[in-house]
Amino acid sequence: MSKNAKTIEGGILSAKGFKACGIGAEIKYKGRNDVALIVASKPCAAAAVFTTNKVAAAPVLYDREIAKKGKAQAILANSGCANACTGRKGMEDALSSAKAVAKELKIDSSLVFVASTGVIGRPLPMDRLVCGIKKAASSLGTANEDALNAAKAIMTTDTKPKQAAAQVKIGSKIVTVGGMAKGSGMIEPNMATMLGFITTDAAITPSMLKRAIKLAIAKSFNRVVVDGDESTNDSLFLLASGEAGNKPIDKAGADFDSFMSALTLVAASLARQMAKDGEGATKFVTVNVKGAKTQSDAERAARAIAKSPLAKTSWFGKDPNWGRVLAAAGYSGADVEDMKAEVYYGNEWAFKKGKVADCAQLEKLEEVMQSDELAVTVKLNLGKYEATIYTCDFSLDYVHINADYTT
Amino acid sequence: MSKNAKTIEGGILSAKGFKACGIGAEIKYKGRNDVALIVASKPCAAAAVFTTNKVAAAPVLYDREIAKKGKAQAILANSGCANACTGRKGMEDALSSAKAVAKELKIDSSLVFVASTGVIGRPLPMDRLVCGIKKAASSLGTANEDALNAAKAIMTTDTKPKQAAAQVKIGSKIVTVGGMAKGSGMIEPNMATMLGFITTDAAITPSMLKRAIKLAIAKSFNRVVVDGDESTNDSLFLLASGEAGNKPIDKAGADFDSFMSALTLVAASLARQMAKDGEGATKFVTVNVKGAKTQSDAERAARAIAKSPLAKTSWFGKDPNWGRVLAAAGYSGADVEDMKAEVYYGNEWAFKKGKVADCAQLEKLEEVMQSDELAVTVKLNLGKYEATIYTCDFSLDYVHINADYTT
Repeated sequence: MSKNAKTIEGGILSAKGFKACGIGAEIKYKGRNDVALIVASKPCAAAAVFTTNKVAAAPVLYDREIAKKGKAQAILANSGCANACTGRKGMEDALSSAKAVAKELKIDSSLVFVASTGVIGRPLPMDRLVCGIKKAASSLGTANEDALNAAKAIMTTDTKPKQAAAQVKIGSKIVTVGGMAKGSGMIEPNMATMLGFITTDAAITPSMLKRAIKLAIAKSFNRVVVDGDESTNDSLFLLASGEAGNKPIDKAGADFDSFMSALTLVAASLARQMAKDGEGATKFVTVNVKGAKTQSDAERAARAIAKSPLAKTSWFGKDPNWGRVLAAAGYSGADVEDMKAEVYYGNEWAFKKGKVADCAQLEKLEEVMQSDELAVTVKLNLGKYEATIYTCDFSLDYVHINADYTT
Repeated sequence: MSKNAKTIEGGILSAKGFKACGIGAEIKYKGRNDVALIVASKPCAAAAVFTTNKVAAAPVLYDREIAKKGKAQAILANSGCANACTGRKGMEDALSSAKAVAKELKIDSSLVFVASTGVIGRPLPMDRLVCGIKKAASSLGTANEDALNAAKAIMTTDTKPKQAAAQVKIGSKIVTVGGMAKGSGMIEPNMATMLGFITTDAAITPSMLKRAIKLAIAKSFNRVVVDGDESTNDSLFLLASGEAGNKPIDKAGADFDSFMSALTLVAASLARQMAKDGEGATKFVTVNVKGAKTQSDAERAARAIAKSPLAKTSWFGKDPNWGRVLAAAGYSGADVEDMKAEVYYGNEWAFKKGKVADCAQLEKLEEVMQSDELAVTVKLNLGKYEATIYTCDFSLDYVHINADYTT
């Protein structure tokens, strides 16, 4: 195995030292999984990143304190109820559910993260959740099916479970990273929420793990735009069991880089799966901005394009409408000179420094636009900086999904 | 007549000293008006405000220079072609069309503004435009019908022409302000463009007129959000003929305030008409944020709510989905404390400091949501600042209009 990580089949249970399950507790849904539990065989190095929304849900407020200590052993997650805008009661419920998990697992409650996604403004149904926790604690397993059940339990409007795993050699040891996520597709009825859970058997210090999660998120989850809305519950968790037996990673260097290559593969795969499964999406779109004057210009322009309702509807309409793409770059705040800019769909140009696609070129573009994976590239030709954002189109179904609900 | 302005029936020809027309030149559309010409009987004080998009269309680049001098006598506007991303050729065409107008009217070409809206990246059909200019110069009139024809000539995906007028007494004189606009609904195929044209017979210096347009726009056009996309061609023009005979307004004070009250009425009416006629809109929505800690917080929160696809689709779905509204405020950057916040639809509360609407309250909310004019109010209860944004919902037709086009 090379120093570079390789993708493998797998998910939250691919790394050694973890058990998981997904069970039904009727939090909101009947006849489907809505509680997931991930448990390590001993306390792990832990890191997490949370929403920057000022309206942060109770579990986010609770977990921020847990994350500060850099140690955790279990993560409880439920779908169906976000435990957001629930005030003091919400904080009490977050603590109570962590305590219920701790009691069942006979561990300290300060080692338990809790994550919720679903309806805002309603309290967690604590009686059903506590029953669910008991059921989950006795259902833990290490099979692929257990990982899949956990991935299914966190789904809301996601149309499919999202899992990924990768391996890399560190010294003589094989280190595995695996994870699961739910998409930023909007949860009925109230929220867009992104939840990610990653486990690894790497031996690594909490401070290096914290650094790793920040680097990985910058190249994955933070590169995904579905509709630009940011949830009250967005969270990404990372637990490291150390059971791979590698020399503990405690500083930057080759070992850390190897670990990062595996972690980034997993995080980026989960992020891409989220963009592909954006609500109502018919197209997975990669927006590239190249030749920007500054890194910040590249980022701004790419994000503006990925968020533009006009650009997104044109992708849905299979229309190589480069004017909307360039105009979004133009209002992003980035430096843009239209007569120096080029716009490509796939490898075909639509606008090139003032030149507009003729009929022959339009035919090529029309073919490119049919694909369900589309790269939209803007070359600004003003500098050397570039940025990539993963997104999706804006379809009739997006409006259906988000309008056809009554609270 | 009181010091406060009153709305009257009218448009671009309500003020004394102007002629106008709208004629068909087949710029893009056949069998409809697509060239408007507004002409004053003598050079006027003039002011204008333009898009901040880095990709600014040729007419915008051209007009910025005209506006610096504070004097103008005519405005030419065409729909069907934006003359954007057209490079040097575009600048030459803007100049040529101003010169053609000047020649027909026997005035100096430096007194002519030009405005375009339509397809990006294609040159103006200059032969047809020059024919149109000749036809327009010989079609000028002062009747209501001429004003209406002009208002129709600038329409693109607008479903109706937009006109407004107001009067106010300044000293012993009645001063009139009137105008027309085209919406920020997205033009087929490429752009969202807002164009506004306002005339007045007030006597006022160019420097005070410049101040007036900036104040007016802050309370009107800059308060409208349709989809958050900003066009390459957005422009607002203001000409003052002085024919009302009032003592010229050359400083701040009571006369300026009176003028501002009339100008603001007209600008705000045009802005509201644009929001109501947003592409595919089924609801006109006024977003109010109150009790913000700072003015900037109030603005940010109101704009984030008005732009949120999740909030906009919930309005379309008649869903009192306060969670999406509050979450948008939460990620806007404004200070928000969910347990202090309140969300109202019309006069009915949906969320009040942690309390969620019960069944009886939900019934009232459901009734409010049926209306085609909806006020969404968030009280943050953290300070004394407030902001209002006019917007519309996000409907299936928005996606239809913007997807079902092939370049």
